[in-house]
Amino acid sequence: MTVKKEQAVFGDWYSQALIKGEMLDYYDISGCYILKPWSYGIWQEIQTWFDAGIKELGVQNAYFPMFVSSKVLEREKDHIEGFAPEVAWVTRAGQSDLEEPIAIRPTSETVMYPYYAKWIRSHRDLPLKLNQWNSVVRWEFKNPQPFLRTREFLWQEGHTAFQTKPEADTEVLQILDLYRRVYEELLAVPVIPGVKSEKEKFAGGLYTTTVEGFIPTTGRGIQGGTSHCLGQNFSKMFGITVEDPEKKGDKLHVWQNSWGLSTRSIGVMVMVHGDDKGLVLPPRVAQLQVVVIPTGITAKTTDEMREKLYDETDRIAKELTKKGLKAKADLRDGYTPAFKYNDWELKGVPIRLELGPKDLEKSAVVAVVRHDGSKQDLTISDLSTSIPSLLNKIHDDMLNKARQQFDDSITVVEDWKDFVKTLNRNHVIALPWCEVEECEDQIKDRSAKE
Amino acid sequence: MTVKKEQAVFGDWYSQALIKGEMLDYYDISGCYILKPWSYGIWQEIQTWFDAGIKELGVQNAYFPMFVSSKVLEREKDHIEGFAPEVAWVTRAGQSDLEEPIAIRPTSETVMYPYYAKWIRSHRDLPLKLNQWNSVVRWEFKNPQPFLRTREFLWQEGHTAFQTKPEADTEVLQILDLYRRVYEELLAVPVIPGVKSEKEKFAGGLYTTTVEGFIPTTGRGIQGGTSHCLGQNFSKMFGITVEDPEKKGDKLHVWQNSWGLSTRSIGVMVMVHGDDKGLVLPPRVAQLQVVVIPTGITAKTTDEMREKLYDETDRIAKELTKKGLKAKADLRDGYTPAFKYNDWELKGVPIRLELGPKDLEKSAVVAVVRHDGSKQDLTISDLSTSIPSLLNKIHDDMLNKARQQFDDSITVVEDWKDFVKTLNRNHVIALPWCEVEECEDQIKDRSAKE
Repeated sequence: MTVKKEQAVFGDWYSQALIKGEMLDYYDISGCYILKPWSYGIWQEIQTWFDAGIKELGVQNAYFPMFVSSKVLEREKDHIEGFAPEVAWVTRAGQSDLEEPIAIRPTSETVMYPYYAKWIRSHRDLPLKLNQWNSVVRWEFKNPQPFLRTREFLWQEGHTAFQTKPEADTEVLQILDLYRRVYEELLAVPVIPGVKSEKEKFAGGLYTTTVEGFIPTTGRGIQGGTSHCLGQNFSKMFGITVEDPEKKGDKLHVWQNSWGLSTRSIGVMVMVHGDDKGLVLPPRVAQLQVVVIPTGITAKTTDEMREKLYDETDRIAKELTKKGLKAKADLRDGYTPAFKYNDWELKGVPIRLELGPKDLEKSAVVAVVRHDGSKQDLTISDLSTSIPSLLNKIHDDMLNKARQQFDDSITVVEDWKDFVKTLNRNHVIALPWCEVEECEDQIKDRSAKE
Repeated sequence: MTVKKEQAVFGDWYSQALIKGEMLDYYDISGCYILKPWSYGIWQEIQTWFDAGIKELGVQNAYFPMFVSSKVLEREKDHIEGFAPEVAWVTRAGQSDLEEPIAIRPTSETVMYPYYAKWIRSHRDLPLKLNQWNSVVRWEFKNPQPFLRTREFLWQEGHTAFQTKPEADTEVLQILDLYRRVYEELLAVPVIPGVKSEKEKFAGGLYTTTVEGFIPTTGRGIQGGTSHCLGQNFSKMFGITVEDPEKKGDKLHVWQNSWGLSTRSIGVMVMVHGDDKGLVLPPRVAQLQVVVIPTGITAKTTDEMREKLYDETDRIAKELTKKGLKAKADLRDGYTPAFKYNDWELKGVPIRLELGPKDLEKSAVVAVVRHDGSKQDLTISDLSTSIPSLLNKIHDDMLNKARQQFDDSITVVEDWKDFVKTLNRNHVIALPWCEVEECEDQIKDRSAKE
């Protein structure tokens, strides 16, 4: 890393951490990025965990086409106003112009709900709970930022329909809690669940809940995932109704939710945990949890000792792998241990085990923890229990540290004269608010000017 | 089903089986389809199995953008000639025309290889083995057919690079064998691995291997998945080289493969196994393996017995679920058992358990096997062992039956006069061939005319 993690060069630090840490590469189309295995693997961990979580709630996976006809896309006015400037349009196939341009989904409400109208014929078809894992396109013209603001991104989008509002309300919060847990239990990132203001809610929905994270270096909050109650707006527009089981002949418009968590979560994780040496990966999603490196080899080391060290390094890594851990021996020739330490620190591997001739004598290894640099001797024969518990401790420590920073940065402000001052100290402000949109605008305007 | 599975109305049968079996729905853009949970779940089973298989071979997952600039897309001539007529072009974002139209990937060779050129700097970076799970778009103008020929489809695409040809050759066959196993071990569909002719190989590659299936009703072979050796064609075009470790200063162009398996596999599975009653799902991928239905309830049945039956039905399904099976009790009110039988037959559930008052007396259930209609009594207390073994037997029986049909339909023809006759009998022809392209053309022409 040629820059430190500090506010003045935070963007540079972020790019370097991602590129040198092999999470991502830039692509020749602006706003599009390549997710390399080091980051895509993290996404797969999130997928596996979250997919199991929603299946327990009775959600099923499906796949809807990436294309939307303009007619369908434009059917819900408020909703499409929010997305129209960012829609990518296919107008040509091969050498032929299409009769009607076709949009690439920016999100799938309008793609899916005509079919919900067809599939939901009776209250017995409710609840309908579908999710899809896909990519969506929002052709943003603002500055793109890897993971955080990209033109194509990967996510899951859940779309559910219920007979009653209370059922929908309940699910909104169940999903929001799964999002909180993805951040806290997998990524070791603390978030605060809450409700967005009317102005910031999802276009065309009833209300939006969100988990909000915090980037200490910049003092900025960041949206981590949103779970929307759409109310009956879409069901009225798309005619998704059932006969009221209580009142024969009466039509009920269904209550709907939609919710999404994207690869942005990986960007948040990098920003929260990374340091001057590069990435710091939380152990439960890291694609490599433990790297084992032979060390202490000098010109005087005998060939026999050298071979013994390499064999034992290899054996330890294989043993840990067998126990279900993600471990690897770094036996690359022609690189010094110092080079290797630096390399794996850049890539954020949670634990480095160093094995030298003296350690071997004691049947021990030195464990170096990435996030705080702490060192400890571990007995080789105990590794299959000590390493998993150390990984758990690392997770807890990383989460607690980040939570402490978040908590320390929340300041209650009740007087305007403290407002901008507090923002400038990189703090998050908690303030009483009347929930009126004009006040929200006023606060934004005034703070921007001062 | 209002049509039978026979050649004259095979297309109608196929659509009905898919729609009524709830695998799929038509979409308002021609050539695009909705994968409902009943089929998407099958795709997830294939994904899980195959993903583990390639990870054992050292393949890692990544994600490359869906967009390709025209400049990059057109860089490999032979390759792009094969796809150009089918490429979908984005020319507009929001209200603005793009400076250069951008293509949606029809496959990712040209998307990925400029980066391979950048990432592969030394022979130590080899082999490079990446895979991605994504969707691709080929805007076909021929008749679309669900799963088999669609404008967007889901697949995996593996792209690997090696130092030597023998390594590449080995992997081509390892992957081809995984494809064979997806068909045979998951979908119970027999396939024949082989090499495509020069004319039918992947555009721009060196040679193409394929697993070929067979649709007995139409007597047609069908491509099930392809594993290509690209040779050095792309590495020369994209400048993917390493220094020869044997001969300092000499450049080596890497040897590359690409391989893909798509949701087409689901269509082949439906065509091979389905029958006049609808879908027949192979047990290892079926999203519901066992449905338990209370039966034999008449006007004379006591409330107590009715309740007992319902409770036991429910208990059995839950017990099987606990054992890791996909089971469900059909306790819907207001439907006769006959209606339910028909409903689950249409959807192809491998085993139906019927539980009536007399069965309950004997502590037994009647197990009805979907694919052959056979019935047997099973002791309730043994279900957690008898059902898994019955599911395995069903898999084997389905595979063997399909294999027998395939084998019986292969006829060796050595004389032209038998050629068309044999084709018309819905047989697959095995014939001596000189491997010359003109002969291939001649055979196609002559057989089409006769």
